[in-house]
Amino acid sequence: MNFKTPLLQLGDVLITSIQTDLSDAQVSEFQQDLVRAIGLKNANAVVIDISALDVVDSFMARVINDTARAARLVGAEVAVCGIQPYVAMTLVEMGRQLFDVQTTFNLEQALAAVKAAVDVRL
Amino acid sequence: MNFKTPLLQLGDVLITSIQTDLSDAQVSEFQQDLVRAIGLKNANAVVIDISALDVVDSFMARVINDTARAARLVGAEVAVCGIQPYVAMTLVEMGRQLFDVQTTFNLEQALAAVKAAVDVRL
Repeated sequence: MNFKTPLLQLGDVLITSIQTDLSDAQVSEFQQDLVRAIGLKNANAVVIDISALDVVDSFMARVINDTARAARLVGAEVAVCGIQPYVAMTLVEMGRQLFDVQTTFNLEQALAAVKAAVDVRL
Repeated sequence: MNFKTPLLQLGDVLITSIQTDLSDAQVSEFQQDLVRAIGLKNANAVVIDISALDVVDSFMARVINDTARAARLVGAEVAVCGIQPYVAMTLVEMGRQLFDVQTTFNLEQALAAVKAAVDVRL
């Protein structure tokens, strides 16, 4: 199966949806694809949707943070949306600030958040 | 690999992105997931993004049409976006109207098209 983490473009915003736990190789491919797409498509913001993830362990939390940092390095604003209730509770219990990015409940709020941040920055 | 075709919710619209050719079992799972999600999430429109597909053969064209029909049956407006230039040429050469749904160039236009259609219908 030629699996790829999906990347959708909506105006200047790239939307990506992590569907499942990723292997090391998939993480690396995903992050490279995303950074390349930010450049190619002239995107100024990225929304990472994790509503399909029922479990986020410390590895996946780190993957999400690293991806956000990589996207910021190439100049894109980042938000994470769709954190399931159980995931939120687990992250709190893990006792760390796992997401040092903006997090929102749903995709609409994430789009609004990154657009507001980009507008402020311009 | 627990592969799922992604489903994103943006307001009343579900956005799905077909990443790769699907097997029969995956098609059936995808269509059921989509129809179920339309009901659960009270969606009134669906956008099917196929920008990740470099090739659309007659099987995949039928899958996309059938999926659109299933979504319409449960009351959702449907648009297909992201048809690659080579895919467009192939579809024309196949000589059939393969997509009996609205098709648009990009995701923004698809969202605008389904929203306009839903507004007209209300």
